[in-house]
Amino acid sequence: MEGSFNQLLTSSNVLFLLLGAMYVFSMHAGFAFLEVGSVRKKSQVNALVKILTDWGFTTIMYFLIGYPIAYGISFLVPASDLLGSDQGFSLVHFFFLLTFAACIPAIISGGIAERAKYWPNVVAGIIFAALVYPFFESLVWGQNNAVLGTADGWLGSIAGNIAFHDYAGSVVVHSIGGWIALPAIIILGPRLKRYTSTIKVSNIPFLALGSWLLCIGWFGFNVMSAQDINGISGLVALNSLLAMVGGTLAALIVSKNDATFIHNGALAGLIAVCAGSDVMHPIGALVVGAVAAVIFVKLFHIETEILKIDDVLGVWPLHGVVGTWGGIACGIFGQEALGGIGGVSFLGQLIGSVIALVYAAVCGFVVYYALKKTVGIRLSEHDELRGADLAIHSIEAYPEEAL
Amino acid sequence: MEGSFNQLLTSSNVLFLLLGAMYVFSMHAGFAFLEVGSVRKKSQVNALVKILTDWGFTTIMYFLIGYPIAYGISFLVPASDLLGSDQGFSLVHFFFLLTFAACIPAIISGGIAERAKYWPNVVAGIIFAALVYPFFESLVWGQNNAVLGTADGWLGSIAGNIAFHDYAGSVVVHSIGGWIALPAIIILGPRLKRYTSTIKVSNIPFLALGSWLLCIGWFGFNVMSAQDINGISGLVALNSLLAMVGGTLAALIVSKNDATFIHNGALAGLIAVCAGSDVMHPIGALVVGAVAAVIFVKLFHIETEILKIDDVLGVWPLHGVVGTWGGIACGIFGQEALGGIGGVSFLGQLIGSVIALVYAAVCGFVVYYALKKTVGIRLSEHDELRGADLAIHSIEAYPEEAL
Amino acid sequence: MEGSFNQLLTSSNVLFLLLGAMYVFSMHAGFAFLEVGSVRKKSQVNALVKILTDWGFTTIMYFLIGYPIAYGISFLVPASDLLGSDQGFSLVHFFFLLTFAACIPAIISGGIAERAKYWPNVVAGIIFAALVYPFFESLVWGQNNAVLGTADGWLGSIAGNIAFHDYAGSVVVHSIGGWIALPAIIILGPRLKRYTSTIKVSNIPFLALGSWLLCIGWFGFNVMSAQDINGISGLVALNSLLAMVGGTLAALIVSKNDATFIHNGALAGLIAVCAGSDVMHPIGALVVGAVAAVIFVKLFHIETEILKIDDVLGVWPLHGVVGTWGGIACGIFGQEALGGIGGVSFLGQLIGSVIALVYAAVCGFVVYYALKKTVGIRLSEHDELRGADLAIHSIEAYPEEAL
Repeated sequence: MEGSFNQLLTSSNVLFLLLGAMYVFSMHAGFAFLEVGSVRKKSQVNALVKILTDWGFTTIMYFLIGYPIAYGISFLVPASDLLGSDQGFSLVHFFFLLTFAACIPAIISGGIAERAKYWPNVVAGIIFAALVYPFFESLVWGQNNAVLGTADGWLGSIAGNIAFHDYAGSVVVHSIGGWIALPAIIILGPRLKRYTSTIKVSNIPFLALGSWLLCIGWFGFNVMSAQDINGISGLVALNSLLAMVGGTLAALIVSKNDATFIHNGALAGLIAVCAGSDVMHPIGALVVGAVAAVIFVKLFHIETEILKIDDVLGVWPLHGVVGTWGGIACGIFGQEALGGIGGVSFLGQLIGSVIALVYAAVCGFVVYYALKKTVGIRLSEHDELRGADLAIHSIEAYPEEAL
Repeated sequence: MEGSFNQLLTSSNVLFLLLGAMYVFSMHAGFAFLEVGSVRKKSQVNALVKILTDWGFTTIMYFLIGYPIAYGISFLVPASDLLGSDQGFSLVHFFFLLTFAACIPAIISGGIAERAKYWPNVVAGIIFAALVYPFFESLVWGQNNAVLGTADGWLGSIAGNIAFHDYAGSVVVHSIGGWIALPAIIILGPRLKRYTSTIKVSNIPFLALGSWLLCIGWFGFNVMSAQDINGISGLVALNSLLAMVGGTLAALIVSKNDATFIHNGALAGLIAVCAGSDVMHPIGALVVGAVAAVIFVKLFHIETEILKIDDVLGVWPLHGVVGTWGGIACGIFGQEALGGIGGVSFLGQLIGSVIALVYAAVCGFVVYYALKKTVGIRLSEHDELRGADLAIHSIEAYPEEAL
Repeated sequence: MEGSFNQLLTSSNVLFLLLGAMYVFSMHAGFAFLEVGSVRKKSQVNALVKILTDWGFTTIMYFLIGYPIAYGISFLVPASDLLGSDQGFSLVHFFFLLTFAACIPAIISGGIAERAKYWPNVVAGIIFAALVYPFFESLVWGQNNAVLGTADGWLGSIAGNIAFHDYAGSVVVHSIGGWIALPAIIILGPRLKRYTSTIKVSNIPFLALGSWLLCIGWFGFNVMSAQDINGISGLVALNSLLAMVGGTLAALIVSKNDATFIHNGALAGLIAVCAGSDVMHPIGALVVGAVAAVIFVKLFHIETEILKIDDVLGVWPLHGVVGTWGGIACGIFGQEALGGIGGVSFLGQLIGSVIALVYAAVCGFVVYYALKKTVGIRLSEHDELRGADLAIHSIEAYPEEAL
């Protein structure tokens, strides 16, 4: 009986984490369509190919190098050992965390869209998936979590013996991705004619489809971050929901009913809630999500129109800054005084979030600057004008129409 | 050991209902794309925004007012109390039932498409989500279920001590939504030039995508209506499948291979099967679904061409009348004599279904008539001709193309 | 306590297999959009209708005839007996295996696209779903598994008492579908002007959407093939992932960054891994997937350009030949010497895979040849030039635009 029970518990855990991995995998289709809808028609194919092949490269690098760096486990043993006595739980653990790692190139992709060379960016993605992301991951969730992720570790000793808390990756995933993207976008420079003519997004339905796929999968992203079925929490689900709603409605109001901001506002809310989704009150999550959308809408305007940084999908304000906000907000709205569960430190959240953004921005700068100075990262003027689809993939998004 | 078992049981229940909520949440993307494909290009963005923001407003109203009305539970307590000793099961219960409540504005949206003002309709949606829907819900599934939902209650005393049975909402959700929509559509009036020129749907692939998303998620809608993993029933899944197939193939034949009817026929079958999916035989479900599609195809023609009621997506025949048919059909095909499980009453189903449609039609009339007489519910002629997208959202569905 | 445990185990099994069925059901939306994107605009509606209605016909035939042939179980008993004491597990078992059976017409559909009559092809699909597929299924997984599927059966006596192994259907599903399609495509003949003018695919985003839906659902296809939650295997999930990635990246390189091949390459990897996903090492799966994509890219060129067989979606190389490769590869990379789990026979895999392809090709030839000689299977020249959408469904994919 006890044996049967333990077997069912193990099986349920494998299923739980596998479902999480599948949901977050499906979010990558969301990244793809969000970008397809947000770029011009001549770059839609490139968006699709980048997301799918970055997924492929990330899988291999994270399997061979990144996951071992983060968790100290290697998979280069016979299949029977991989399966082990827990029905291959460690393999779905890898799969789940891979889906997070693969967000890094997917986030960057939206910022550098329409004018980046294909292969140099593959190289950048490989470096992030194999080294940059896993190393930071190890500090919070992995084998080096004594630095940031445990109460009696380095940060804990500063923050009242409270560890840096990032339940589902506002900071570890989204801010790292968004802050890597910022220097990449600046180094790459704006699209040709971006500030001398009018460039518009191509397809709101595809953009919306991308947003929906991301929103749906996000409940797997956040809830399955428990990584153990007995850690499942209805609070995480509800906070995710209310932050998404807060982001949607705040974007509706602040943007004066602009469809692109509304669909991205839902994402802003979800990005901000990841870190503290297990400790905030739903009303707190609503506020955190609403603030996130306001940050996104306002900062996207400042970034792209005033600072003239051509961040096509707004990934720096959306994932970078809102991710940082999520890390900090966890230290505010997670407090018992605000209806939260408690056990979080404002100072700890602030320090951890700032370390992450500095680390990411520096790494992003070094990698893209080095690539620019060696192989070059930007399409030729001629290729950019033809469009990434024809230049890189020798095909248009609607080939019959183009005949 | 018993403690461990109970914990796994609780966790499995939370996961079960969360998956249901996620599936029905994904159906809202289906509502969005079904409408995108069925309206003209100049109203596609409006379709997308309505579904997403109605979801947001419904979430907040149902959280604060609607769910407490239906179930007598409030969430305005600290997060630790929300999480409770059952891992936040009550929160996923809310989430699951929210996904049902949010079907009301999503259904109405398809009927009033292309000419309704944005904010007045938000107000209507808020009233339905906060008051109208939850009150009826309470009579069947909630704290006032002694009226319709219990064998020894008011209706039961009439129907041979058999309660009104609506397993997954043919009546509570779909007929309420569809019968609210009917007066709204009539009060609003047909689109300009609807009956003096030719208006066609814009995009069959998006319409089909919407239908697929709805069909896939529907298995969560019906199966997870058990609300408890130990209530899971393969019969509910199979009946859903066969009703969908019955609807698809009947629409194929009756409509002479018309793609829009075929994709909506699948939905007709699914709407009709909700109520009795747990008590019918699969062959009965096939018949119920086939009849549903015939009702939809024929009545949509009568409604829109003969009665000249411009119900854009046919939500009154589809959700309203077919929902009512589903309530009644449960009392027929659920009988043991027809291979069903039994325990249902034809009279009880008939009375319950009729009460619902009268209640919904009256409430829909009152709300939309009041809004029309106060703030107005219809776009100006000029705005309607420009299209809801430009008039309300200042953007087209394909902005680059429109340049 | 033991009763409670057994109930949860049963419920978990029903849920597990239902989730699998839902995932594979969602793959049919993937088949639909893969075809929508790959055909010309004038055949998009036909693609959508074929997939949805073939699903409907297959459901009924497999329910009444096919499943009983394969597993010796009939469902023509009262609903209470269907529900039984296991919460209707047998019904979700049917649902899950139906989703496999329905792949047969979905695969064929992509090969014969744009010029086949509607109803004759429905008849063909009915024959495959009711008889041809279930009979072969019975030899491997069903009531006649003593022929191929058990160690001490007919094939086992040849292959060292090792049964033919096909965990999730590289051979039983994909190669059967693909090898039925080959004679159908040849008998039907190429599209008009296929080899005298330029014909191009219509929509890469829809093609990519189809591929994503297939890839996501595939984890249900493979993992839930355990058919029992306690059989869940993280190794199956990881092998599926790595084969998909191997296929994606090999197609990227071999096709020189062609978006259509890259998105189909992912599918090639997934088709090849089904058979041995439970016994191979992830590195082996990566190789198997990469080889699959190379086979697909090269053979598609030979088939369609050199042999002038107008296989629109390349279903013979993709599902047929790569499916066969998957059956054989299981006998290679499943060996312990290559890091696999062992217990598979190269000879057994080879024989089983060859029997399947011969059986499928012969059945496909007989059915389509008979239909051609009786009712005819091809649209008139006039109808083909107008397009299948207008000719069969009296509607275009974008009716407003066509006004």
